[in-house]
Amino acid sequence: MNKINTRAKAKTKTKMKKLRPNQKILALSGGVGGAKLALGLTQVLPPEQLSIVINSADDFEHLGLHISPDIDTHLYALSNRDNQQLGWGRRDETWSFMDSIGELNDEDWFQLGDRDLALHILRTQRLKQGQNLSGITHSFAESFGIKHALIPMSDDPVRTMIKTGSTEDQPKHEYMPFQRYFVQHQCQPVVTGFHFEGVETATASKQFMAHLADPALAAVIICPSNPYVSIDPILALPDVRIALIESPAKVIAISPIVGGAAIKGPAAKMMKELNVPVNPAAVAAHYGELLDGFVIDQLDSTHEKQISSTGLPVLVTDTMMIDIDIKQLLAQKIIDFALSLTSSND
Amino acid sequence: MNKINTRAKAKTKTKMKKLRPNQKILALSGGVGGAKLALGLTQVLPPEQLSIVINSADDFEHLGLHISPDIDTHLYALSNRDNQQLGWGRRDETWSFMDSIGELNDEDWFQLGDRDLALHILRTQRLKQGQNLSGITHSFAESFGIKHALIPMSDDPVRTMIKTGSTEDQPKHEYMPFQRYFVQHQCQPVVTGFHFEGVETATASKQFMAHLADPALAAVIICPSNPYVSIDPILALPDVRIALIESPAKVIAISPIVGGAAIKGPAAKMMKELNVPVNPAAVAAHYGELLDGFVIDQLDSTHEKQISSTGLPVLVTDTMMIDIDIKQLLAQKIIDFALSLTSSND
Repeated sequence: MNKINTRAKAKTKTKMKKLRPNQKILALSGGVGGAKLALGLTQVLPPEQLSIVINSADDFEHLGLHISPDIDTHLYALSNRDNQQLGWGRRDETWSFMDSIGELNDEDWFQLGDRDLALHILRTQRLKQGQNLSGITHSFAESFGIKHALIPMSDDPVRTMIKTGSTEDQPKHEYMPFQRYFVQHQCQPVVTGFHFEGVETATASKQFMAHLADPALAAVIICPSNPYVSIDPILALPDVRIALIESPAKVIAISPIVGGAAIKGPAAKMMKELNVPVNPAAVAAHYGELLDGFVIDQLDSTHEKQISSTGLPVLVTDTMMIDIDIKQLLAQKIIDFALSLTSSND
Repeated sequence: MNKINTRAKAKTKTKMKKLRPNQKILALSGGVGGAKLALGLTQVLPPEQLSIVINSADDFEHLGLHISPDIDTHLYALSNRDNQQLGWGRRDETWSFMDSIGELNDEDWFQLGDRDLALHILRTQRLKQGQNLSGITHSFAESFGIKHALIPMSDDPVRTMIKTGSTEDQPKHEYMPFQRYFVQHQCQPVVTGFHFEGVETATASKQFMAHLADPALAAVIICPSNPYVSIDPILALPDVRIALIESPAKVIAISPIVGGAAIKGPAAKMMKELNVPVNPAAVAAHYGELLDGFVIDQLDSTHEKQISSTGLPVLVTDTMMIDIDIKQLLAQKIIDFALSLTSSND
């Protein structure tokens, strides 16, 4: 966004624009919901016009392996290797390794499939050898035939910690690593806050910052991922928020909340526990000044007025990405919407 | 052995002796051949009377994982988890991980089964956390229900390097890590020598040395493993050879060479390349002064005279351990043989 193009001015633009060949789009994404839109975007934009920045704050060490759940979700989804039955992990997965871990009485709360292990083992080895997460992710994507750039938000460790407690049942505050909260405790603890360990001293990845500084960047699309634990860690990186504000690119977010619930994951439960109304307006308010446009589902059309009354342009459309055609259609609509917000001299 | 009990004297003893409840046996073992006899020994001796020391000089790092092939061979063989079809690795194995490694264009010359991976991943993690190989091996054995002590020869890294070359085809000397020679190059290179990297500064494991110093130790059984790459690394550890010589325990080796060939592995090929006759007499000569008794197969009875003419008592028997009954029978015969060499006041 660039405050010179005011929202009011942008909103008056209605003429359909096409993305010019030299213009670029950057997507910010988290887990499964984000990866769905990222896949749609890869279907309508060539690799030279689209890059995807992925949350790495839910990375963690497990059994001595460096696991990057959100990055792997994108690697699998964008190469047609995702396990759609499970909703996570790899297709045609086998579980012999986990059987053996159980036999050896070790930690088996985090399921690691046999095929999936290859990414974790190679990533761990290569990090130990001094390669960075960006380079490793690029190499994996290349091996999987993914042409679009998948960029970890940072090559430095940032770790989302979930603040829990301060309720009657759970009086003591406690910080819990995200995967413990998400997988081991199945999102049961009541959330009272978040902390992104290491974010103050982390640096956004080089490619990420280069894209943000690129004058050809036409739009930044915040995918329908969990705002608190998937997108906020990316935005919390030093210089990212300011770069987004200074960029002439239009920043568009898609609501992960549809009809009072999250399509997937604990976003709605977290909002309730944080005493935030579970609706798209609250998501828009959460991103605040950063946004130039907001996309909500047709189920939530009643919220359009409230959001647009703040001066934020709203696109109401079908955001339920149940198949590849809808993902692609939604991706195209979001791009068109972003371009519609661009002033004619952009 | 203890030179006070001379061989000649020992040889005259023929009265059948029984192992007393306070007496102990130590086996030194390497890969699959050694594990067969080790299994037989566990069938005839209770855990308090038998411990097995295993070569760890063929350990190596692969894909960032610490792999201990000989230790794992024993863990699988002694818990009825060994893959008898393959002749290595785990039973009911699956190979999804290797498929993925291939897809990611990484090193796939060393096959790691999905079930097998659990040992490598947990071992690597625990070593990194500061546990030693002895403790880790003990914990794995316990989880697998193995009651007898499996003891790595050392908790320090010792690595067998194969010296190759100096032939017409292969004029240049080169040192090659054992697994590269054994697995990647399938024992093709011509062997001209061996080097046990790190052995000078390594310490034999605490339990190993404690057994050697135990006055209750009645016999040390050198399993029919490769003398050069399975047993020699154990014997090359500082203080081991001297402790064996000073111990009153009878040291008995079983020939891995039967009928001019090795039952398994490259021992015979190595002997040829080292210009050593491929027969049990050469194996006995290789161990030399260390031995108090030697066991050869009935197929090699023609070599008995040559060996016993050096003053070394020889047991000729069926050493082809094709089933569990034969393993058990052979184990018992070897123990009886060892005890027959003990002077009456031992």
